[in-house]
Amino acid sequence: MSGHALVVGAGLAGSLTAVYLARRGYPVRVLERRGDPRAPGVREEGRSINLGLSQRGIVALREVGLLERLAPVTVPMRGRVVHLPDGLRFQPYGLAEDQILHSVLRHDLNVALVDEAERLGVEFCWGHRVTAVDRAKPAVTAIGPDGEEVHTADLVVGADGAFSAVRAHLGRGLRVDLHQEFLEWGYKELLIPVGDDGRPRTELRALHVWPGDDGLIVAHPNADGSLTATVFLPFAGDNGFAGLTEPAKVREFFARRFPDTLTLIPDVVEQFLDHEAASLVTVRTSPWHTATEDGRGVVLIGDAAHAVYPFFGQGMNAAFEDCSVLDRCLGERPHDLPRALAAFEAARRPHTDVLAELSKRNFVELRDKLRSPLFLVRKKADLALHRLFPDAWVPLYTLIAHTTVPYGEALDRARRQDRLLGGAAAALTGAALAGLIRRTRGRRRAS
Amino acid sequence: MSGHALVVGAGLAGSLTAVYLARRGYPVRVLERRGDPRAPGVREEGRSINLGLSQRGIVALREVGLLERLAPVTVPMRGRVVHLPDGLRFQPYGLAEDQILHSVLRHDLNVALVDEAERLGVEFCWGHRVTAVDRAKPAVTAIGPDGEEVHTADLVVGADGAFSAVRAHLGRGLRVDLHQEFLEWGYKELLIPVGDDGRPRTELRALHVWPGDDGLIVAHPNADGSLTATVFLPFAGDNGFAGLTEPAKVREFFARRFPDTLTLIPDVVEQFLDHEAASLVTVRTSPWHTATEDGRGVVLIGDAAHAVYPFFGQGMNAAFEDCSVLDRCLGERPHDLPRALAAFEAARRPHTDVLAELSKRNFVELRDKLRSPLFLVRKKADLALHRLFPDAWVPLYTLIAHTTVPYGEALDRARRQDRLLGGAAAALTGAALAGLIRRTRGRRRAS
Ligand SMILES: Cc1cc2nc3c(=O)[nH]c(=O)nc-3n(C[C@H](O)[C@H](O)[C@H](O)COP(=O)(O)OP(=O)(O)OC[C@H]3O[C@@H](n4cnc5c(N)ncnc54)[C@H](O)[C@@H]3O)c2cc1C
Ligand SMILES: Cc1cc2nc3c(=O)[nH]c(=O)nc-3n(C[C@H](O)[C@H](O)[C@H](O)COP(=O)(O)OP(=O)(O)OC[C@H]3O[C@@H](n4cnc5c(N)ncnc54)[C@H](O)[C@@H]3O)c2cc1C
Repeated sequence: MSGHALVVGAGLAGSLTAVYLARRGYPVRVLERRGDPRAPGVREEGRSINLGLSQRGIVALREVGLLERLAPVTVPMRGRVVHLPDGLRFQPYGLAEDQILHSVLRHDLNVALVDEAERLGVEFCWGHRVTAVDRAKPAVTAIGPDGEEVHTADLVVGADGAFSAVRAHLGRGLRVDLHQEFLEWGYKELLIPVGDDGRPRTELRALHVWPGDDGLIVAHPNADGSLTATVFLPFAGDNGFAGLTEPAKVREFFARRFPDTLTLIPDVVEQFLDHEAASLVTVRTSPWHTATEDGRGVVLIGDAAHAVYPFFGQGMNAAFEDCSVLDRCLGERPHDLPRALAAFEAARRPHTDVLAELSKRNFVELRDKLRSPLFLVRKKADLALHRLFPDAWVPLYTLIAHTTVPYGEALDRARRQDRLLGGAAAALTGAALAGLIRRTRGRRRAS
Repeated sequence: MSGHALVVGAGLAGSLTAVYLARRGYPVRVLERRGDPRAPGVREEGRSINLGLSQRGIVALREVGLLERLAPVTVPMRGRVVHLPDGLRFQPYGLAEDQILHSVLRHDLNVALVDEAERLGVEFCWGHRVTAVDRAKPAVTAIGPDGEEVHTADLVVGADGAFSAVRAHLGRGLRVDLHQEFLEWGYKELLIPVGDDGRPRTELRALHVWPGDDGLIVAHPNADGSLTATVFLPFAGDNGFAGLTEPAKVREFFARRFPDTLTLIPDVVEQFLDHEAASLVTVRTSPWHTATEDGRGVVLIGDAAHAVYPFFGQGMNAAFEDCSVLDRCLGERPHDLPRALAAFEAARRPHTDVLAELSKRNFVELRDKLRSPLFLVRKKADLALHRLFPDAWVPLYTLIAHTTVPYGEALDRARRQDRLLGGAAAALTGAALAGLIRRTRGRRRAS
């Protein structure tokens, strides 16, 4: 393996891909806008933002030998607890022992990845903001503590998130498709602290959901017994972030819509008013890579290539899967970087495009459907069939979260199952109707 | 009317909106990257690019009193001539005398608009490239012949085309939706010169179309008897721009696909190889405007707000309609710029979003359907019904090109008609089937 690699962004995708590249023998440098996350105080300063790690992310972390090391800082989630006005419902994730998700602090995960990358010789340049990329060399311009620097490399990986500077420069003058869409809803994070008795205030080993068409909450557990709740609300309107600016209104809103949060989060009003609302974006783009005639190239991974709404909990998992697939493609064509990057894009983009759609749909599901009896019945039938035919029948959520079946194939399979379910329902209705007709005729004859 | 207006871009939308604003009493300054189009030699230098002016554009130009002045430089087009392997077909545009399009050189139209704007006191700053916009003031930074300048204004209009710098800066840090998509096909312009006898080489008062699923040509007439043809081809492949780089291949391609062009354009091969292929982009975005608390604002119009594929010939027409609608909104709320801009965006964006879709569809129609007998029959039925019920039944093309019915309403109406046409076809088929069954039964009885 020859050539130097330059990674832009030391977030989740950037630091994991640095690990993969270093393992493959590349000398790797990473340019990151922020400071070193391991500096004293950073962990405490940052809010406790956590993420659900599912099968795709697990597989990648296992591949680079990091999964075990993370165990102490993760909390397994065996299903979801749905908070409804009349009480709680528990929905297990799946049948098998390993059909669980892991909740982990973004910060802890990031530090573990950076530590491992450094151990493998990766050089991190903290406080370096990338301002331009020249895909023809390729060369990257960054502003660091000592002013502007230009870094050249054989492979530049843009892992600089949803508002990627690498993406913006990669496309200059090219026919680049870009779809960027913001949700009319945003989010704020709230901490559900450990109880006064030192124990979790609610079931810890689960994901919690408060569904609702005018606001919803999702909460993940933390290793210290607290949980991090994310409140999703419309930006506009009296019951949106724009309207909820007075303590009395906020209290009234939570009391009416999410009554149990008042006991779970004693200072819910203060936290809500104290935190900024953040926005949610979907980004699809193409191409993801460019190459020079002499075999160098630039490629996007993670949110830089495909930002999705967080309602399927797959953004990081898809980013980690990117890293794994890119590594495989580089391994399969060790002396042909342009074709390796093309193979990577061809293998991934159709599937992350599907993920973007699924993530939008899951917003609607969380918002509108989780409270619909019909939907829940269908969901139950889906799970029951899975229990009867564990291999032949797998619900979409299970395929996405608990397998590594490519997203597009998962969707195709779920569609086929849906048609069968619809067909079965029709057949049942048909049979019932036939029975009815027979009974009516019987009665007629009898009369 | 108070306040200063600053227009970015002196293209078609920019110069027309400068005319409207000046008529409304605004002091207007226009910043344009290029030099003065009236400078000696510019007309001859530029290629003869022409456009089809239809009803929406006509209405706007009439509103500012420019239509008559343009008559000498336009050529009326009464229908389209379709070039098929077995000869030509003429399809008239409509029934009424005024259902015609006008072909005009972009350059001549632009000069007429700039002349009129200057007459009304508009100040043009040529050679000024806008590099940044601060929407909070608003202020515009431009690089002119004497270096960087900052211009402030009460109203900034971004009329700087499909790759608008104003649009890019308007959205910084806002939740801006942006959809940018390139067609896999591009285009080159070719001149069909006047014949050796000094007369046009083909019917002048029509739009010419060579349909085809692997390449198509559209040609508009010029006032001097020549026509400008635009060849649309895929970028990729042996029969795309990438493959057609050798004279022999180009000649063979035109001879096979568009045989009559070899006589219409004697130097077709030279022209084709000499010109650069340009790309085609669709851009949808939102919001189109921002406003400050003290009543200033920035707004996008024309291609900066909505670039569409040129296959419905509506880009400029929609841009001119924008200018007219913006003027009306400013007139209706003379002392409330923020609400005037909001009203403009609300009135226009849904309709130009529809236009973007229609323009994509028309690409498919020109490419695939114009040669399909079934499609042509349906098209004929559409026109026949229009002839029978001129007011009640109006084909989509007629609604778009020959009326000012908003694009969205035009589409809704065409959809209703389509359903009726489908229903009628189904009814006819049903009747035919019934007849068949009756006949079969009759025969059975007879046998
Ligand atoms: C509310 C919410 C909940 C989520 N929950 C989940 C979940 O449960 N499960 C899941 O899988 N995913 C989840 N996600 C998605 C997940 O957070 C992202 O997909 C993931 O962080 C993407 O990683 P990344 O490395 O591509 O981008 P990022 O994590 O955004 O990292 C980008 C890095 O690049 C740096 N950078 C940016 N610009 C520059 C520049 N110009 N120069 C240098 N450096 C730069 C940034 O500082 C950052 O460190 C959630 C997202 C949100 C918003
Ligand atoms: C092949 C083709 C055929 C077409 N045919 C038709 C047709 O038949 N009928 C029709 O209605 N439409 C047609 N169109 C569409 C039409 O050309 C556009 O919709 C129209 O030109 C848009 O006008 P505009 O003023 O918004 O943008 P433009 O005409 O692109 O003008 C933008 C102006 O802004 C200037 N500018 C750009 N950036 C800056 C900057 N940073 N600072 C200062 N100035 C700047 C540019 O120099 C330019 O003068 C066609 C388009 C194409 C590509």
